Amino acid sequence: MNKYRDLAPSLRTIMTPGPVEVDPRVLRAMSFPILGQFDPEFTHLMNETMEMLRQLFQTNNRRAYPIDGSSRSGIEALLTSLIEPGDRVLVPIYGRFGHLLVEISERCGAEVITMEREWGAVFEPADIIGRIRETGPSLVAMVHGETSTGCMQPLDGIGKACRELGALLVVDAVATVGGVEIKTDEWMLDAVIGGTQKCLSVPAGMAPITYNDRAESKLLKRKKIERGLRDPALSTAMDSTAIRSNYFDLSQLQDYWSPARLNHHTEATSMLYALREGVRLTLEEGLPERAARHKYHERALVAGIQAMGLSLYGDPSCKLPVVTCILIPEEVDGEEVRSMLLDDFGIEIASSFGPLKGQIWRIGTMGFSCSKKNVLHTLGALEATLLRYGCKVPAGEAVQAALEAYALTAVNGAVPAVN
Amino acid sequence: MNKYRDLAPSLRTIMTPGPVEVDPRVLRAMSFPILGQFDPEFTHLMNETMEMLRQLFQTNNRRAYPIDGSSRSGIEALLTSLIEPGDRVLVPIYGRFGHLLVEISERCGAEVITMEREWGAVFEPADIIGRIRETGPSLVAMVHGETSTGCMQPLDGIGKACRELGALLVVDAVATVGGVEIKTDEWMLDAVIGGTQKCLSVPAGMAPITYNDRAESKLLKRKKIERGLRDPALSTAMDSTAIRSNYFDLSQLQDYWSPARLNHHTEATSMLYALREGVRLTLEEGLPERAARHKYHERALVAGIQAMGLSLYGDPSCKLPVVTCILIPEEVDGEEVRSMLLDDFGIEIASSFGPLKGQIWRIGTMGFSCSKKNVLHTLGALEATLLRYGCKVPAGEAVQAALEAYALTAVNGAVPAVN
Repeated sequence: MNKYRDLAPSLRTIMTPGPVEVDPRVLRAMSFPILGQFDPEFTHLMNETMEMLRQLFQTNNRRAYPIDGSSRSGIEALLTSLIEPGDRVLVPIYGRFGHLLVEISERCGAEVITMEREWGAVFEPADIIGRIRETGPSLVAMVHGETSTGCMQPLDGIGKACRELGALLVVDAVATVGGVEIKTDEWMLDAVIGGTQKCLSVPAGMAPITYNDRAESKLLKRKKIERGLRDPALSTAMDSTAIRSNYFDLSQLQDYWSPARLNHHTEATSMLYALREGVRLTLEEGLPERAARHKYHERALVAGIQAMGLSLYGDPSCKLPVVTCILIPEEVDGEEVRSMLLDDFGIEIASSFGPLKGQIWRIGTMGFSCSKKNVLHTLGALEATLLRYGCKVPAGEAVQAALEAYALTAVNGAVPAVN
Repeated sequence: MNKYRDLAPSLRTIMTPGPVEVDPRVLRAMSFPILGQFDPEFTHLMNETMEMLRQLFQTNNRRAYPIDGSSRSGIEALLTSLIEPGDRVLVPIYGRFGHLLVEISERCGAEVITMEREWGAVFEPADIIGRIRETGPSLVAMVHGETSTGCMQPLDGIGKACRELGALLVVDAVATVGGVEIKTDEWMLDAVIGGTQKCLSVPAGMAPITYNDRAESKLLKRKKIERGLRDPALSTAMDSTAIRSNYFDLSQLQDYWSPARLNHHTEATSMLYALREGVRLTLEEGLPERAARHKYHERALVAGIQAMGLSLYGDPSCKLPVVTCILIPEEVDGEEVRSMLLDDFGIEIASSFGPLKGQIWRIGTMGFSCSKKNVLHTLGALEATLLRYGCKVPAGEAVQAALEAYALTAVNGAVPAVN
């Protein structure tokens, strides 16, 4: 007898900064029978996905395709392919995911230079540009939207400076892509990593990336053809500049994602179906319209939170529109509140990491989870939970304030078509 | 207007050595709404999956969990975590995937020693053991089932010898797990990688692995806690023994897959649902019963191929039961035949790599694709296609021979419960 029961996951309202609820049309896409990886119908779907990713990243780059793995696999693929041991890398840090960029760069053998901003704030672009001038890195790696602190780093001018000073600019847009516009070409970003499980509302398990010819020329210098596919007479020795990973070797992966179709891994079919559908729906909604929808629900959520008398964490001038961080009131235990929200209301919100552990809650309004229904339910449930734990919040005001914010936007004619 | 149409992939009969048809119950599992990665319901599903993987690999190892990526991500995770730069690694090669083990080991900085057997044959275990004795590697990496040649390497005694001689034995069982029994503990394998998209009939995108305490003690010596999660006062320097990947660092991943739940990547929820369901169905069928089913359909397929007058490739004494390799008759172009099978009959079979390119076809009978219906359809369609291209095959005999093989087995009482 098999003791493992049929899968029957509870339905959740997922209001974390990812993973968030998956669009039902994406779930449906994953339930289709699969095609073989070299079936012309499948390679056509791969090509379509590349075209759509170029639109999503607002780029004319030839290279735009997913890495098979979670978002950090996309970060590691780019850094491991672009950083040679000994390369100098500059990482501006303003939250947890800046540290991850340092961690991965160090493992690639980089000489890493960091600059840090206190959590809850971001850098002046001029300060970053000054530091690039001072230190002369060959690569700058930075986070666009820091979900750990709910802050978003403006990128104006940094790409242009990198181009003038001979550095590559690699941007982690995992949290922002699909929720905030990413103007890869206009901002002169050399490489960008997006996330699936956040504003695209696709499950985790793939990481779309794009990179331009400047980045490609760097990684092509390090290219080796895979043993078993190349002429056996060629040397097999790995020199010190070779890319240290096979799985993340973009010089091989881009041949797989091109008409050459040089065999590499077996592409994750159902995840590709999911990504294609998620990006298709995003483009159908429209990138500016989708960004406007995220702002629309953020405003209502913030109005509700403030009506409860709770304080937002972080500098409001650099607030990430898709994540709202709230200082946990002193009277309550943040984890007890989160548990009650999950157990009684089926709503998941997040805590945070490192110096912010136990200090803040984080509420995501991302992709399919970013809806009026979800915002109103979350505010109502949070108020009820805080009242239950003896917190003095004014009963009934949070939801009214959010409804008011929605109504005001409607008067101004800025209601998104999808909500 | 969005020019990308709704997903509507054609239904295929997939008879390649992977990816193969996905069990509809697995497709259904992927269509369920997701849970958050730290939702107790989800961590319970992660724990159940670990339990089931231990049964699948026939092991009491504490460590049995998936890597989020294709099968080669599982291989790279084990090798990159277990090989320190300068370590001596022995790789016996008898097909393409042996070369992949060399490639990945070289990128890990190993001093790689190889021994090669001509394609279509395997090694005497005594020869491998002799070579381990001679060369004293710290790790031996080898392939259990080579899909490129349709051969299976017996592992008898190799694990025991590795244990006596102080080497770790890492086995790529990507093609065999779920179709052939893998006795991890009995065979004394230190680490094993399985594949999802072959005999488990789950889409590509995850790689289940297991490793024992011998392997764990090696990788724990190299452990670093991730920056942003560890005490900032601790040194951040990477020494030469540190694991060079963050994504594939098993010393961190095993903390994520344990009650500590130390945050690493975002687990690929829908792929985990798929893997859990695929392994659940495998255990429900029974491992010996499932292996018997694969042999049962292999016999019928081989009888049909031989009745057509076609020749099998490779030494029959080491034939991989889940892949049948056929010499392409001189009168036809192998790729034209494959295209007609796909375009007219909706059946996909495979070609091969390197020295076997254009020489053989490979037919997989794996997992959900391994059924009477599929074997009979494939034989009928292959015969019709060969006749169409002017090949002199005896009309009607292939399917009759397969039916006869099925009937004979039925008389002997060995018909599997599932077919």
